[in-house]
Amino acid sequence: MHALEKLLAKASGKSSVKTGEIVEAEVDLAEVNDLYLQVIKSFYEMGGKKVAHPERVAFVFDHYSPPPTIKAADNQKQMREFCEKMGINMLYDIGEGVCHQLLAESGLVGPGKVVIETDSHTTTLGALGSFATGVGATDLAIILLTGRLWFKVPSIVNINLDGKPPFPVMAKDVILHVLGKLKQDAAIYQAIEFTGSTLSSMEMDERFVLCNMSVEMGAKTAYIQPDEITFGFLEAMGTKREDFDVLTTDEGFTYSIVHHIDVSDLKPQIALPGSVDNVTNVEEVEGTPATQVFIGTCTGGRLNDIKVASEILKGKSVAKNVRCIVIPASKKVFKDALKLGYVQTLIDAGAVFVTPGCGPCLGAHEGVLAPGDVCVSTSSRNFPGRMGSTQASIYIASPATAAASAISGRITDPRKIL
Amino acid sequence: MHALEKLLAKASGKSSVKTGEIVEAEVDLAEVNDLYLQVIKSFYEMGGKKVAHPERVAFVFDHYSPPPTIKAADNQKQMREFCEKMGINMLYDIGEGVCHQLLAESGLVGPGKVVIETDSHTTTLGALGSFATGVGATDLAIILLTGRLWFKVPSIVNINLDGKPPFPVMAKDVILHVLGKLKQDAAIYQAIEFTGSTLSSMEMDERFVLCNMSVEMGAKTAYIQPDEITFGFLEAMGTKREDFDVLTTDEGFTYSIVHHIDVSDLKPQIALPGSVDNVTNVEEVEGTPATQVFIGTCTGGRLNDIKVASEILKGKSVAKNVRCIVIPASKKVFKDALKLGYVQTLIDAGAVFVTPGCGPCLGAHEGVLAPGDVCVSTSSRNFPGRMGSTQASIYIASPATAAASAISGRITDPRKIL
Repeated sequence: MHALEKLLAKASGKSSVKTGEIVEAEVDLAEVNDLYLQVIKSFYEMGGKKVAHPERVAFVFDHYSPPPTIKAADNQKQMREFCEKMGINMLYDIGEGVCHQLLAESGLVGPGKVVIETDSHTTTLGALGSFATGVGATDLAIILLTGRLWFKVPSIVNINLDGKPPFPVMAKDVILHVLGKLKQDAAIYQAIEFTGSTLSSMEMDERFVLCNMSVEMGAKTAYIQPDEITFGFLEAMGTKREDFDVLTTDEGFTYSIVHHIDVSDLKPQIALPGSVDNVTNVEEVEGTPATQVFIGTCTGGRLNDIKVASEILKGKSVAKNVRCIVIPASKKVFKDALKLGYVQTLIDAGAVFVTPGCGPCLGAHEGVLAPGDVCVSTSSRNFPGRMGSTQASIYIASPATAAASAISGRITDPRKIL
Repeated sequence: MHALEKLLAKASGKSSVKTGEIVEAEVDLAEVNDLYLQVIKSFYEMGGKKVAHPERVAFVFDHYSPPPTIKAADNQKQMREFCEKMGINMLYDIGEGVCHQLLAESGLVGPGKVVIETDSHTTTLGALGSFATGVGATDLAIILLTGRLWFKVPSIVNINLDGKPPFPVMAKDVILHVLGKLKQDAAIYQAIEFTGSTLSSMEMDERFVLCNMSVEMGAKTAYIQPDEITFGFLEAMGTKREDFDVLTTDEGFTYSIVHHIDVSDLKPQIALPGSVDNVTNVEEVEGTPATQVFIGTCTGGRLNDIKVASEILKGKSVAKNVRCIVIPASKKVFKDALKLGYVQTLIDAGAVFVTPGCGPCLGAHEGVLAPGDVCVSTSSRNFPGRMGSTQASIYIASPATAAASAISGRITDPRKIL
């Protein structure tokens, strides 16, 4: 069996599971974000009186943080009241950060855990060896009621990455390249396991990016086998290896498909407006004028992302025609970036810092795009209207490419700046 | 004549002016904020082809910074295009700060200047010895077209403040006390000149607060006679006393009315929800539970405000039931607060930093209030619905009172914390 299958078997009280089998698994950690008041409504509609395991539930206010409308403010208020009533102590209020990053920092997510959130990018947390996926309001309400949820055991795709791409090529370039090759339907309702030599030089901040963007290939979840880098991260979050059940894949396990992708010589990648799998080398679109650069989100706002952006922008200036918005993925990231001087460097260069949270990623506030705007973004999606106007263009790229483009005011290969 | 009358006479090319006289004055600096796309529309409707003095015009994006809607983003875009077309170089884009603070920092505002902005709190800049007032879109468009605007010479109210209130009583407490005594109609279409011994121990950050809130008494403008504190500030902004025309009031000038107010023993003040002139001692409403604390705006987000908040919150924690939102009034304030460690202290205590700008002051975004919310705010207005829901309550107080209330989660006299 694959480690993920063992994980689902164990969570369901079974000795083994098979691809396609429906299991009902115990959920170790469930999270509701501030888009999902419907979870509470569904909970009550289904006759909910008390939450099965309040200590396994978190609420995070990240999509509207701080709230830009009375409705958003009122939704958050109702969620606070629900937490109070149900004894849910893990309430991450406005300004704490993006749910996936906060859960990664919580010490509660790690090898062997089942982690379910009301957000598709929950696949991020598979980078810590969890079974992590996003669900809708009704499913999450079921978890609140019962502590459990059904899953179809997914078949597993292996993406084997070889080689160490030269800096400033980042994990975002790697996963964009993968998306460009395999396309958006590469792994619908399958799990993706990343393996290969590329991972051995990738810190967790980078690994999260691979698993995060896996959902853009339709993946139910993503997975990276825990190793010393994983345990180093978990230790920094105040946990021990022994706190988790590290499962491994049996030798000879058969993947539904294996992709071998060599990224040794990968150049900076960029997804062209409209579709995240329409990917090319940055140099192919160099010179395209930009009006906004956005460095942030659950796939581009971690400490390493901000470090790279600050290295590129140090002593330089954001071009006059561009707004450069930087949003740390969590308050911890913000504090660390303050301590390390990245915030100061970026502000001196002309960047605009925004409260930790999702920011303009979903077009809700804090940098919505106007018709005609062209944004170079480290976020995950660029379909028309994602960040505001359907007549705006979003290019998805790495923090290095975003920062380099901020300096010139045009899409720029970061290798030219460094 | 009063210094303000001399100022208006000089700006109108006259040797003298009288109260009630209509003059047409040359405008030294005009500013348009991002609420006022109508200025550009009116400019064109009146046949505008080119701006009379583009070097005397500034645009500031502060009310929607960064933009929370496509409409706000598009308005800003049209303003950028207008500035480009008209050769207006003073474009303060998102994240630069609140217009009044930015103009104060610009070095262009000082004694003898006529400064007009599309915002009622422009009276703030009278603290630097300018004639400064807010106008609507049509008037501002006239300035763009002609460089001039008509004014009725106001009669002048003198508010003489005596005594040095003990820390943590701040300028906000003083002006709230004044408002409570004189009420909202105390100076309709009049100028208010502040004099008295209280001013001699007030730095500019505090003086701005007095002049800012004067508009809440209906004042057309406010004024403080420039002195060494003024010149010290102007010097720090890169200007010299000689860059300005320092006018003085003739001895024996007759004010329309003179108010003597002793603030030696003033206690921390607070305006109760609904009306900014419904003022009492903080201790009268102590213990009222709060859900949000807001430290920011053109009357509560300057460096001294953030310094005081950081002194009070140092080593303490924001109460669990409260969101404490801090918004520096400008990028310069943010950078100075970073350098001095205030940002770090406030974040460690649990405060949430938001991009420099107006924030939730006007209920547009970044901390809008839900029905039932109770906010202790350093802002200027608390009528129902100002910051969001009409069923939310806003108490207006000093940064000291706001910070103290953030710690306890209840309205708290800051003298109890220090």
